[in-house]
Amino acid sequence: MPRVLGMTKPVMSIADLEKFLTREFPQAFHAESGLTIDKVEHGRAVVRLAYSEQFIRPGGTISGPTMMMLADFALYLAVLSAIGPVALAVTINFNINFLRRPEPRDLIADARMLKLGKRLAVMEVSLHSDGSDEPVAHVTSTYSIPPKSGA
Amino acid sequence: MPRVLGMTKPVMSIADLEKFLTREFPQAFHAESGLTIDKVEHGRAVVRLAYSEQFIRPGGTISGPTMMMLADFALYLAVLSAIGPVALAVTINFNINFLRRPEPRDLIADARMLKLGKRLAVMEVSLHSDGSDEPVAHVTSTYSIPPKSGA
Amino acid sequence: MPRVLGMTKPVMSIADLEKFLTREFPQAFHAESGLTIDKVEHGRAVVRLAYSEQFIRPGGTISGPTMMMLADFALYLAVLSAIGPVALAVTINFNINFLRRPEPRDLIADARMLKLGKRLAVMEVSLHSDGSDEPVAHVTSTYSIPPKSGA
Amino acid sequence: MPRVLGMTKPVMSIADLEKFLTREFPQAFHAESGLTIDKVEHGRAVVRLAYSEQFIRPGGTISGPTMMMLADFALYLAVLSAIGPVALAVTINFNINFLRRPEPRDLIADARMLKLGKRLAVMEVSLHSDGSDEPVAHVTSTYSIPPKSGA
Repeated sequence: MPRVLGMTKPVMSIADLEKFLTREFPQAFHAESGLTIDKVEHGRAVVRLAYSEQFIRPGGTISGPTMMMLADFALYLAVLSAIGPVALAVTINFNINFLRRPEPRDLIADARMLKLGKRLAVMEVSLHSDGSDEPVAHVTSTYSIPPKSGA
Repeated sequence: MPRVLGMTKPVMSIADLEKFLTREFPQAFHAESGLTIDKVEHGRAVVRLAYSEQFIRPGGTISGPTMMMLADFALYLAVLSAIGPVALAVTINFNINFLRRPEPRDLIADARMLKLGKRLAVMEVSLHSDGSDEPVAHVTSTYSIPPKSGA
Repeated sequence: MPRVLGMTKPVMSIADLEKFLTREFPQAFHAESGLTIDKVEHGRAVVRLAYSEQFIRPGGTISGPTMMMLADFALYLAVLSAIGPVALAVTINFNINFLRRPEPRDLIADARMLKLGKRLAVMEVSLHSDGSDEPVAHVTSTYSIPPKSGA
Repeated sequence: MPRVLGMTKPVMSIADLEKFLTREFPQAFHAESGLTIDKVEHGRAVVRLAYSEQFIRPGGTISGPTMMMLADFALYLAVLSAIGPVALAVTINFNINFLRRPEPRDLIADARMLKLGKRLAVMEVSLHSDGSDEPVAHVTSTYSIPPKSGA
């Protein structure tokens, strides 16, 4: 399936993102959040959630809201990687299809831009268990980007 | 807009739901979760999330994942209210449109069945801040219901 | 479920809409299109599609694309009813859940605004067969509204 | 992004699909429909819509409903390619993001399975103008598959 972006150098590096998130979203991104940024390109972010008892449902499954939180986080980093720290960029739509039960392992979200416009960014996220190629969930999401991009 | 269900007596009462959730999902529903079941009818559940520092983003806004978690919880209760404690009913699709910034107040999710079939349930959720009529987010979601409903 | 708009006087009347559509979209809205505008309020449009052999699938069912076309048309009229003839307003997202088989009768789409902002309009549509209250499909959709509204 | 299916031999070939569609859906697939099946694999179908005056909107754009019809058609062929002529397989959800204006050229829809289960198939479709790699629209869709697959 064709991808939109040829550039690979992100506006913010992994270190930039970690610094920004620690300062701006300490309640979401901290030492015990289980979140790690595995990879960042221009318009792409790969994020890992460490497998932990606190995210599981009966039967050992990672819960739906946990998957949504992880996808949402990866989407935000993909936006940051392409346009920088625009605090006012907001999600307007988020659509998730749950495909398979995740394995009892780390969960990885790979978010990519389908389109980056002046006012809107449209992205998709594929979630899969560490070590597996089969997607456990697929997300499409749209962000609204404010008229003037400021930090 | 026409609604599908005429019946109002739920299969599980608020007390039944609280007992079930406390036993089956202690990590999601507990004294500090901030979640209260305000109302249950057949195919409908109204859930309240107490306003709390831990759910907020810079600027005092309740975060997107928090809204998704609340909607997901209300959807599950609406399913339980109509078909009882079917542990294997699973979300297959969840689509959310974010409409407005929530107020710094309790957030209320009102989930209703659009259709309850043998194999699928389709629902919508409207989220609004306590004391306001304007929706802050709107969700549609589909659940798969297992062939044989067991407790 | 709470609705957003208190105003009922539309920016364009049924006659205004018919004139505009006949001039701008003659290939979609014409004597043989089977489309009738039943009702228009501010941010709401009710449209009827006459039952016809050409829209049906094996078994007498109205096809999915026909339902999507009808919902799309009702959405556009709901936008026109609230902001007038803005040729550049475009759909950015359209999500439909198919709920039941339509009856072999006229199909009615009732489109309403959930939110009208400066840059985005979010709407929902309920489709039902004439004479029935049960929805056959439910749509949510987002439109992008251009910065300066011109005719 | 990982894809689910390793098999490439479809259950129905292009010739099989053409024969089936001509017999079962003569109103949708005929000499003047402008539709051509470019490629079929197991769980994948690539369909082309010839550029034609009848599909265009003011400004030369292919209309949204035309794109939805094309995506819907490609989805159905992808289902047929994987499970054969199951007349009762039905769309339950269809979500489309419109990304760019299509060029005044043939429009191509590439539909692929994300998951094929016993009861559900989840797919995505990328639409692009002939000769371009940039997607003009992206669709995810879920089909319900009847308990017993019959021809």
